[in-house]
Amino acid sequence: MDISQEAPSERLKTLVATDPDAIDGYLATLSGAEVVRAMFRLESAERHAILRVVEPETAAEFIEDVPDEVAADLIEALPVEDAASIVTALPSHEQADVLAEVEDEDMDRILGAMAPESAREARELLGYDPESAGGLMVREYLAFGAGATARDVLEELTSGVRDLSPTLLQYAYAVEPDGTLAGVVRTRDLVAAPPESAIGSLMKRPTAVNAEADLATVDACLEESEVLSLPVTDDAGRLLGVVEREHVDDALVERASDDHLKSQGIVGGEELRSMPVAERSGRRLSWLSVNIVLNMVSVSVIAAFEETLAAVIALAVFLPIVSDMSGCSGNQAVAVSMRELTLGVVGPRDALRVWWQEAKVGVLNGLALGVLLGLAAWAWKGNPALGAVVALALALNTVVAVSIGGTVPLLLKRLGADPAVASGPVLTTVTDMCGFFLVLGIATLALGWLQPV
Amino acid sequence: MDISQEAPSERLKTLVATDPDAIDGYLATLSGAEVVRAMFRLESAERHAILRVVEPETAAEFIEDVPDEVAADLIEALPVEDAASIVTALPSHEQADVLAEVEDEDMDRILGAMAPESAREARELLGYDPESAGGLMVREYLAFGAGATARDVLEELTSGVRDLSPTLLQYAYAVEPDGTLAGVVRTRDLVAAPPESAIGSLMKRPTAVNAEADLATVDACLEESEVLSLPVTDDAGRLLGVVEREHVDDALVERASDDHLKSQGIVGGEELRSMPVAERSGRRLSWLSVNIVLNMVSVSVIAAFEETLAAVIALAVFLPIVSDMSGCSGNQAVAVSMRELTLGVVGPRDALRVWWQEAKVGVLNGLALGVLLGLAAWAWKGNPALGAVVALALALNTVVAVSIGGTVPLLLKRLGADPAVASGPVLTTVTDMCGFFLVLGIATLALGWLQPV
Repeated sequence: MDISQEAPSERLKTLVATDPDAIDGYLATLSGAEVVRAMFRLESAERHAILRVVEPETAAEFIEDVPDEVAADLIEALPVEDAASIVTALPSHEQADVLAEVEDEDMDRILGAMAPESAREARELLGYDPESAGGLMVREYLAFGAGATARDVLEELTSGVRDLSPTLLQYAYAVEPDGTLAGVVRTRDLVAAPPESAIGSLMKRPTAVNAEADLATVDACLEESEVLSLPVTDDAGRLLGVVEREHVDDALVERASDDHLKSQGIVGGEELRSMPVAERSGRRLSWLSVNIVLNMVSVSVIAAFEETLAAVIALAVFLPIVSDMSGCSGNQAVAVSMRELTLGVVGPRDALRVWWQEAKVGVLNGLALGVLLGLAAWAWKGNPALGAVVALALALNTVVAVSIGGTVPLLLKRLGADPAVASGPVLTTVTDMCGFFLVLGIATLALGWLQPV
Repeated sequence: MDISQEAPSERLKTLVATDPDAIDGYLATLSGAEVVRAMFRLESAERHAILRVVEPETAAEFIEDVPDEVAADLIEALPVEDAASIVTALPSHEQADVLAEVEDEDMDRILGAMAPESAREARELLGYDPESAGGLMVREYLAFGAGATARDVLEELTSGVRDLSPTLLQYAYAVEPDGTLAGVVRTRDLVAAPPESAIGSLMKRPTAVNAEADLATVDACLEESEVLSLPVTDDAGRLLGVVEREHVDDALVERASDDHLKSQGIVGGEELRSMPVAERSGRRLSWLSVNIVLNMVSVSVIAAFEETLAAVIALAVFLPIVSDMSGCSGNQAVAVSMRELTLGVVGPRDALRVWWQEAKVGVLNGLALGVLLGLAAWAWKGNPALGAVVALALALNTVVAVSIGGTVPLLLKRLGADPAVASGPVLTTVTDMCGFFLVLGIATLALGWLQPV
């Protein structure tokens, strides 16, 4: 399979150098996934050359298939006219998503080079949070006055004039002269209705979502109404667009994956290796440099116990283990809390209940891990007191770690911080400090039993 | 908002104790998300009591909304007759998903208590990987002989006899007498066709997916054909079912979130705090105990340098920092590789290219972090040699960490292992060993400059 995948990128390399006009035709023979894979195997100069020579529609199809931040990077690197025609060729909800990730200055230049009407629509959509109903909606839909007949709707539907997705063809919306959404009709019900009946007499009360509604709310509404799309309205009830389940699901997949990357310190939740090295390095470093300062804070606990360490040098071996194992236990609790937050099973107010459920697991796992490490320490140095010190320290710190890991995401959420980004650093800093303090503090108390006689 | 959410679980507590017959009616007034949140706020005994008294359809709606592993746990705890009626009430593709997570013994008992026809269908679906086209498909669809007329199809469609989802109503499939899929017709095209025309004359060649096709393939096919559902066939081309984009998207969201949990050592990728404590503890511990053994292996490097440590006790402070920072840098690279694997931008054969792209970032970030740590060490002990040792060690180990972090997921994938589970432990073990060796090895060489005169 991999061997056959090797070919398209090589072919593109050849075409870009020898026969650029043939690229459009060649890309049309590949699947979307093949185009993405092939394009990312090229050098960035080749990728730019291709985006400049192909038709804007071809470029837009590729841009649609890559994450928004990557799309923005690709677009920014192009001359502004090329960028503007590609953005214009994108579906309306994608335009705003990509432009939102472009630097403000470039965004203004690109919007300036677009047709005024397209630019105005894109600016309007840019006003919405990309994860809100307004940010996810498309502006294309079937809308009629309440006096239009079933025949009118079916004629427009079957004429093929309107290039709507299969989902958007399922519903027609009845709209008042002032733009207020009055009702919704399933187009398949129109088939069975008398051709001259007015859609005002066939329509049902619509379930609509407000343009400001967030991703979870839109998802829940779609789930509840068991429909494939919902009309989006403003506060006055005017129809603004339609949000499709497909785009909501895409946003949910994107968010789950972003959270994973953010939790590992990929700022913004998005990186592909096709981005410039300096940018990749800088984004990762911004998180790492916060982390290294936090690390220095936690190891200051070790520095305070230098005498104990000098007396029992073997303790130095156990500090990284206690730090790493507590971090692992705590991160498991963080991951479960993030999952439960996403599922809506817990909210910020459940911190106490979550703590209690984590504490129980912490005691069991702390005992098991503590005994294991204690026995290993005893066996290594033949000193049962050393075993007892590290066993007790790891057991206690495991309880601390899961307690913090379980509750910190909920508390961060309550404070309005992004739990995916901040939970890890908060967790490891506190558990490291506490773990070092427990190992060295207990060792200091037990110094008489620890030192060789 | 949280205050109003408090009510349903309290209400359910009261109803289960005083008026169990009213629970069905009460649950019907709540949204799916509200039911899930309320149910998970109850004690497990209360949850079971509710699942036993409500109608199987009500229970099935709730079971559908929770992750499969959790659903399986809930089902297993019920008497087998209750479990069987709830499973029967689930949509066909959900039945197999939930049963696949149930213990084998319980699965046989539940299937034994189901109606023979339902049990046979569920067993058939259980034969497929839950993330394959066969595992995702539903068995309900509109199929006709090629001789059926447009009128026949539209009559069945508008009769409302078939309770199909809006997606499934969009296509009718023409099937040969032996079950082979012959073609597909869009139901909305039938509206415009002469009522007596045979669907054999209207149908198009269908794009079908094989039942064994994996999630990525099915997703790519849906993406390419721009349809909401695809027919699923066996190797002989016989129509087995229909896979809907909605279920594929759900599976993708589930997988992204599972990968995140697995990478933190939640075995199986699924845990909710409603599961029994012993089970939660055991699953987490199985990963932690592998990790602690790997940790002992890595710190054995420190043990081998006890003399150097005894001579320069300040080094003990830097070992956890180098270990933690290298782990962070490496995990960023792992996260980006996991993301690129999911997007299909890289494959196992791209390891060398990925390594080179990571190495560049590693050199930049290693220098930045090394200099930062080195200056801190110099400032703390007033010893520039100490600063130089830790700076060099951290810089080199950062390059090692991102090289391993970027390539290990690709290599694990090639070996057929799950990169989400195994990348972290492999990464931290190797980078810890290497980091400890670099700090203490370089320090041993530079011992003359490090020791106080």
